[in-house]
Amino acid sequence: MRVGVCAQVLYHQPFEEALATAATLGFEAIELPVDARNPFIDLDDALAGGWRRIAQTVRDTGLTISALSNHQEGQLLLGPHGVDTDAIHPGDTEEKIRYATRRLEQTAMLAERLEVGVVCGFTGCEDYSRWFPWPVEDGYERMGATFRERLVPLLDTFARHGVRFAHECHPRQFAYNLETARLALELVDGHASMGFNFDPANLVLAGMNPVVFVAELGDRILHVHAKDAEPVEHHVDRSGLLAHGRWDRRDRGFRFRIPGWGNLNWKQLISELRQAGYDGVLAVEHEDPIIGRVEGLRKAYEYLSPLVLREPPAPRWW
Amino acid sequence: MRVGVCAQVLYHQPFEEALATAATLGFEAIELPVDARNPFIDLDDALAGGWRRIAQTVRDTGLTISALSNHQEGQLLLGPHGVDTDAIHPGDTEEKIRYATRRLEQTAMLAERLEVGVVCGFTGCEDYSRWFPWPVEDGYERMGATFRERLVPLLDTFARHGVRFAHECHPRQFAYNLETARLALELVDGHASMGFNFDPANLVLAGMNPVVFVAELGDRILHVHAKDAEPVEHHVDRSGLLAHGRWDRRDRGFRFRIPGWGNLNWKQLISELRQAGYDGVLAVEHEDPIIGRVEGLRKAYEYLSPLVLREPPAPRWW
Amino acid sequence: MRVGVCAQVLYHQPFEEALATAATLGFEAIELPVDARNPFIDLDDALAGGWRRIAQTVRDTGLTISALSNHQEGQLLLGPHGVDTDAIHPGDTEEKIRYATRRLEQTAMLAERLEVGVVCGFTGCEDYSRWFPWPVEDGYERMGATFRERLVPLLDTFARHGVRFAHECHPRQFAYNLETARLALELVDGHASMGFNFDPANLVLAGMNPVVFVAELGDRILHVHAKDAEPVEHHVDRSGLLAHGRWDRRDRGFRFRIPGWGNLNWKQLISELRQAGYDGVLAVEHEDPIIGRVEGLRKAYEYLSPLVLREPPAPRWW
Amino acid sequence: MRVGVCAQVLYHQPFEEALATAATLGFEAIELPVDARNPFIDLDDALAGGWRRIAQTVRDTGLTISALSNHQEGQLLLGPHGVDTDAIHPGDTEEKIRYATRRLEQTAMLAERLEVGVVCGFTGCEDYSRWFPWPVEDGYERMGATFRERLVPLLDTFARHGVRFAHECHPRQFAYNLETARLALELVDGHASMGFNFDPANLVLAGMNPVVFVAELGDRILHVHAKDAEPVEHHVDRSGLLAHGRWDRRDRGFRFRIPGWGNLNWKQLISELRQAGYDGVLAVEHEDPIIGRVEGLRKAYEYLSPLVLREPPAPRWW
Amino acid sequence: MRVGVCAQVLYHQPFEEALATAATLGFEAIELPVDARNPFIDLDDALAGGWRRIAQTVRDTGLTISALSNHQEGQLLLGPHGVDTDAIHPGDTEEKIRYATRRLEQTAMLAERLEVGVVCGFTGCEDYSRWFPWPVEDGYERMGATFRERLVPLLDTFARHGVRFAHECHPRQFAYNLETARLALELVDGHASMGFNFDPANLVLAGMNPVVFVAELGDRILHVHAKDAEPVEHHVDRSGLLAHGRWDRRDRGFRFRIPGWGNLNWKQLISELRQAGYDGVLAVEHEDPIIGRVEGLRKAYEYLSPLVLREPPAPRWW
Amino acid sequence: MRVGVCAQVLYHQPFEEALATAATLGFEAIELPVDARNPFIDLDDALAGGWRRIAQTVRDTGLTISALSNHQEGQLLLGPHGVDTDAIHPGDTEEKIRYATRRLEQTAMLAERLEVGVVCGFTGCEDYSRWFPWPVEDGYERMGATFRERLVPLLDTFARHGVRFAHECHPRQFAYNLETARLALELVDGHASMGFNFDPANLVLAGMNPVVFVAELGDRILHVHAKDAEPVEHHVDRSGLLAHGRWDRRDRGFRFRIPGWGNLNWKQLISELRQAGYDGVLAVEHEDPIIGRVEGLRKAYEYLSPLVLREPPAPRWW
Repeated sequence: MRVGVCAQVLYHQPFEEALATAATLGFEAIELPVDARNPFIDLDDALAGGWRRIAQTVRDTGLTISALSNHQEGQLLLGPHGVDTDAIHPGDTEEKIRYATRRLEQTAMLAERLEVGVVCGFTGCEDYSRWFPWPVEDGYERMGATFRERLVPLLDTFARHGVRFAHECHPRQFAYNLETARLALELVDGHASMGFNFDPANLVLAGMNPVVFVAELGDRILHVHAKDAEPVEHHVDRSGLLAHGRWDRRDRGFRFRIPGWGNLNWKQLISELRQAGYDGVLAVEHEDPIIGRVEGLRKAYEYLSPLVLREPPAPRWW
Repeated sequence: MRVGVCAQVLYHQPFEEALATAATLGFEAIELPVDARNPFIDLDDALAGGWRRIAQTVRDTGLTISALSNHQEGQLLLGPHGVDTDAIHPGDTEEKIRYATRRLEQTAMLAERLEVGVVCGFTGCEDYSRWFPWPVEDGYERMGATFRERLVPLLDTFARHGVRFAHECHPRQFAYNLETARLALELVDGHASMGFNFDPANLVLAGMNPVVFVAELGDRILHVHAKDAEPVEHHVDRSGLLAHGRWDRRDRGFRFRIPGWGNLNWKQLISELRQAGYDGVLAVEHEDPIIGRVEGLRKAYEYLSPLVLREPPAPRWW
Repeated sequence: MRVGVCAQVLYHQPFEEALATAATLGFEAIELPVDARNPFIDLDDALAGGWRRIAQTVRDTGLTISALSNHQEGQLLLGPHGVDTDAIHPGDTEEKIRYATRRLEQTAMLAERLEVGVVCGFTGCEDYSRWFPWPVEDGYERMGATFRERLVPLLDTFARHGVRFAHECHPRQFAYNLETARLALELVDGHASMGFNFDPANLVLAGMNPVVFVAELGDRILHVHAKDAEPVEHHVDRSGLLAHGRWDRRDRGFRFRIPGWGNLNWKQLISELRQAGYDGVLAVEHEDPIIGRVEGLRKAYEYLSPLVLREPPAPRWW
Repeated sequence: MRVGVCAQVLYHQPFEEALATAATLGFEAIELPVDARNPFIDLDDALAGGWRRIAQTVRDTGLTISALSNHQEGQLLLGPHGVDTDAIHPGDTEEKIRYATRRLEQTAMLAERLEVGVVCGFTGCEDYSRWFPWPVEDGYERMGATFRERLVPLLDTFARHGVRFAHECHPRQFAYNLETARLALELVDGHASMGFNFDPANLVLAGMNPVVFVAELGDRILHVHAKDAEPVEHHVDRSGLLAHGRWDRRDRGFRFRIPGWGNLNWKQLISELRQAGYDGVLAVEHEDPIIGRVEGLRKAYEYLSPLVLREPPAPRWW
Repeated sequence: MRVGVCAQVLYHQPFEEALATAATLGFEAIELPVDARNPFIDLDDALAGGWRRIAQTVRDTGLTISALSNHQEGQLLLGPHGVDTDAIHPGDTEEKIRYATRRLEQTAMLAERLEVGVVCGFTGCEDYSRWFPWPVEDGYERMGATFRERLVPLLDTFARHGVRFAHECHPRQFAYNLETARLALELVDGHASMGFNFDPANLVLAGMNPVVFVAELGDRILHVHAKDAEPVEHHVDRSGLLAHGRWDRRDRGFRFRIPGWGNLNWKQLISELRQAGYDGVLAVEHEDPIIGRVEGLRKAYEYLSPLVLREPPAPRWW
Repeated sequence: MRVGVCAQVLYHQPFEEALATAATLGFEAIELPVDARNPFIDLDDALAGGWRRIAQTVRDTGLTISALSNHQEGQLLLGPHGVDTDAIHPGDTEEKIRYATRRLEQTAMLAERLEVGVVCGFTGCEDYSRWFPWPVEDGYERMGATFRERLVPLLDTFARHGVRFAHECHPRQFAYNLETARLALELVDGHASMGFNFDPANLVLAGMNPVVFVAELGDRILHVHAKDAEPVEHHVDRSGLLAHGRWDRRDRGFRFRIPGWGNLNWKQLISELRQAGYDGVLAVEHEDPIIGRVEGLRKAYEYLSPLVLREPPAPRWW
């Protein structure tokens, strides 16, 4: 295992400087978003040849690319297609689906060029609030046919490019916890190009134990986000776990944190990932509303680095 | 305080028999739904004079009506207006809103006739999944204007009929926890006809402590549902609190239960309700997928009855 | 074991009626306070012969007297002797000590007449806040000499009357937890007339586990108060366990409750009392600010009665 | 479901009186041990025709026999065969195995005669302490061959008599927790006559959650012992869960208790048993060292009876 | 934020050496006591001009003075005035009050000279044990008038010197928890010179959650003591939280510890302090009875330093 | 206190290299096993003079020997003597006892030569599963006579060599928890040569709190194993604490871990050891099935080293 970083927190710096910052802090790998909002990579330009410069720039800093990612545009695949996603790409449902499909395919093509085997992302969900089985008891299951219909061709495309899709379970995605992740896998007939970007903090929001996700679906984990979750003890009684509104309001009952500042047991998570055979990158995703950009990355690295298991275990010697 | 019951669990019996069952079990009051799906009361017919027979029938069993309720049709007020609610009333958004408005008004009128001061119900929510502040950070708050626009006239109508609306915080409603309940109150300028039907089990789903709802908004609690919540210890680690799908699947991480069979501390809830000055009915809402209809009501009554505080406290004597 | 009641909660009724109320609710015994503030018993009058009527009146209701008590006046023995205790008896330190000594002796004499073996009470404490070892590190221990000096003669007097003194550990008493109870016993050289009135709720205030008191000092437990303690979960984080002020303010972090409405595990307590050989009365002391006088007694009795162990265990049969 | 009782606690009474005691307390069924130590049934005599009187006597009290049991003699099947079991039956290993085999067969024959479908019992274990994988790492697994060799013929015999064997997981048995119960089932090729007598308290001693046993092996549960477990909070830190020595020593860290006086969540257990389709008897096994024989049975019955689910659940009505 | 130290632990060294020790260990600031017992600063001498040397000496080591403090002599302001405080300053009540007033004023004057904006300290309390509302129910509130009478003039004096008084909530002070801190603020009409020296360990003794103090009164926190609290798990059941006697007795149920060796969640505390806008010093107060002077300071610094948030957070970037 | 290591994890390296590895990682001491299975020390050879080379080799690396150990062969002293221990030394009971006795004596002799005051080891147990008081209630106590008979002469031998025996409480040993450790001490009349090698992880398996062992028997702790215990949260509900089978199966409910990766509170343990006066070595015993040999030692050292208390505490200074 190695410690990496998700690039978003460094968007305020030019690309080269951002990479240098990451490398200087000790990170060994970086996850690069390619959605239209990111300031580092223009997908069209990169596919037209720019990928060589990207690869070279990253290589020069000593980093590797652990994954490309495209959460924003992936959301349009299944929706919601109304005002919620107009800022990502305007248009009606058809246009949004077409856009998402094209952009995800381009992401896969760029990953192939850059020899990055994994694309992390979202798929969206027509209406995530259907998890509650009312007014329609099987409202959630009914969305399964569309999931299959849109995902299978996309996964086939990914397979042709030798890239796998690492879905990130998250609120507002069709697959948001262990059970819906299993459901998603079944719907695509266990497609070999389908896997997961394991982000334990998201699973806490669903009220489940992230370690169990690894214990049961560990062989489908293609990438890991090192993000912590803090149910804020002195607020959650009144704010609730499903707090709405701005991340930086002071009285939120739930916050994402950098690793080590939330409630997750990282030794337990890393032990289970190791037992599941995962030997890739733990990419720090810094969305902590309390700690500064670089200070947060530094603290996250210093926390995680001593915990990462780099050497293989030996057979029993005692 | 007294112990009542919600009528749905007795829909398999004729009205008179259902009332007799409730009375025989010891219940003192009943909450009567009036949506089109209920087999006991036809709203049009009741308003055309049938209310006299209803009142007489209930009176004959020795019960009182603690509240009318209309959750089903209230959902159409704010939505969602697509397939999720077609079974309640078909039509486009406009038709659904019109239907909900008319039916809620009728409900208030019937309450006035029956001298029942409270109508419990839902308001719906265009997209409840916007609680998660992404892709639009203030997506939830943006729905506030519509909430205000649809609710204020309705509450004015209720006021004219001398009836108050007791909203039930619940998934897929705009107000689903303490913070959104406060938000809802602010949006209607603290309208005197607006209050809450306190259902503690629903609040557990939002990851908050129901007692705190009483501690902070107790003076707006107009009615209480006695329903328990069981985060199923041996399943919730993998199923999650936000379990989707049928209520009776065996491996669900969350279940509604009759009072006493879940995790809620009813002595604590009753103590806080008492301190908030609540002296009304605790209406058992039996949606327990494990226990039979009448057996569940019997067990619920036997559990709750000894806990209810019927006499006022005295000044300090020690 | 049997279930009894402390008489204070019934001060609003005439003596005979109070006894009848207790008996009707099922109680089998009563603890009778004899301080000057009690409306039932005048100590001088009783010793002058009135005790016969008292005995007869109690006997007529089928109750027994589990203990006399004198907490109020016992407080004057060690203090504080300033304004805090002027309402109990005015005067300077000397006068207060003399009064306390005389009244406790009279209490013992009346107990002898009534053939009640136990007097429950307080001893007071010059300055209980010295538990915190600053500014004087051994400030608490230094008060030991006075404790010995005042208690030993009193205990000798009790011994002459064949009565034992059951001190109740409580804030503002020299012995307020297990360790200071042990200290008190040592200071009186393990005097045979010294024991404890075990009130588990008081010990919770000192942050200790009442079961351990029974496990270690069970053979010195002469009487038991059945009173529950509720660290109020949703207030204690801000109010604290050492909440000051009126018992009925709504946001207190700590409250005394009737048995079954607090956090104490009564099955555990009763099991340990049984194992310690205690076979006396559990006297319900109702100081619950939320529940009415008679309703509280009824609920307390209904809760405790099925838990009390009345038969002796048999040798192992399996 | 119904509430029954295990007969051992009533050995101090004559058979008819014991049955009458059970019936009077409310129990509906009884589990009858047939080992040589029991004072009620002589196995040889019963098989020689005495069974008719037994059946009649039980029938006369209105009880049914929920199961026969033979834990004592079953232990000899696999051992240990040294001094530990000489009091059950003396002799060398061969003799002990022969005796156990014959007695278990006789038990099955008597069950057939009495039309009781289940025999509860033990199988023993050569050395249970081999659960710890040292000095021989697979020491436990190595005992599997013998388990299979001795059990399969016995189960075949049971099958011929139309009776099933309900093994009770317990310390010193080969199958003592969920994993070894699964192992045992595999070793007998899932023999149709093999099942379990579910005793949740025993499983607590193995540090596992009994509810999970029901969730996973519920369809093999043939009988249930209603026995509670109390890890004694104030002693377990020093005594440990694996406390040795007499059950009635006061400072034990672990005790068996009657239902309701330990830590088990009986509503949870009963809910899960219901979901697993179990509709048989919960037989109170009273081995509580603190509570008297009949007082314990009374308290156990009063605790369990209101919890038992007697009616089937209805399809969703809400 | 920065990490500082309270000087007391270094009293065994000469002033210059003590400062050098602190600086060498990494501390950036120091809190200097000025009571008569401290060996570093003579208040009269310092005000007579010695302050220049003090300022220079501190400056030479690269440290800053985060606060002056005077807990000892502040205690005399409200008492207790008997033997408990004779070692601080002998005399009757009047003399003690006069002394305290003068010394606190001098402390403020020295702070002004040294350009230190904060003086930490105590105010004392006539009888802290009055938190328990018996024998006088409003005994605590009655002390409010004196608090106001003594504090307001003192705070006015502080204001004239441009210094604020940071009261430390603590047993034996009038303000010892969140509620009494609020009460104190009200009694001085929210005087602008009144604030708090936040010592989370002291608040644990009052059974409250220190984070909530920050969440509610964060804007009045002028200084912070980094001291940890350990309710000693294996002793607190018998010793209690309110343990009396020497800090180094082995079986105490409560101990002060250096940060990281108690139960406090420092990441949570620091996050909340950051959110409350606190950007000052966390001054390690080493009163850990188990760890040596310098070893304790080293461990405390190494624990806290990586947790301190030094950079400001950025607006949301994700 | 200092941090040491148990040699087993380095058996794959030659002796000199193993010592160098330990020293390079920072360890200051080593525990050397001398059983026949160890590759470093031949007991006969060492006693014949080889000890000088051993001493010199260790000294050359800057390490000290904290203890010799002989767990394997010590097991034969009390058994079990069947197949379980044939791999340690074949033969019948008599031969095994003789072998164990001789080897332990040799171990003591070598310790004397090497000036190592402590030998860690096991004593075995005829049948550890007798902790469960059935079928023979005092089955465990009955083994006491043999314990005494075999241990006392051995301890006398140890005394003659000026060496103490540090028994390690562990499953399958006569003394496996605090109560049996006390029993063992009593059986050898508190022999001055008898003490304990404190391995907290082993005690977790017995369901007790290791800190309490130190609090009660701290003065008999001669050596400490730094090994952590992980009741695997997401498996223990089904696997149980008493999991059988291979240490590296993925779904075990219990695992030994390196310090810091289990549930033990090392600051609490070290504080209590310090208070008990222990100032020796914490020897890391790496039996963690998830982490590699050297990586595990490195992580263990980095975790423990900052926690060790090296300096004595000072008298109270505050």
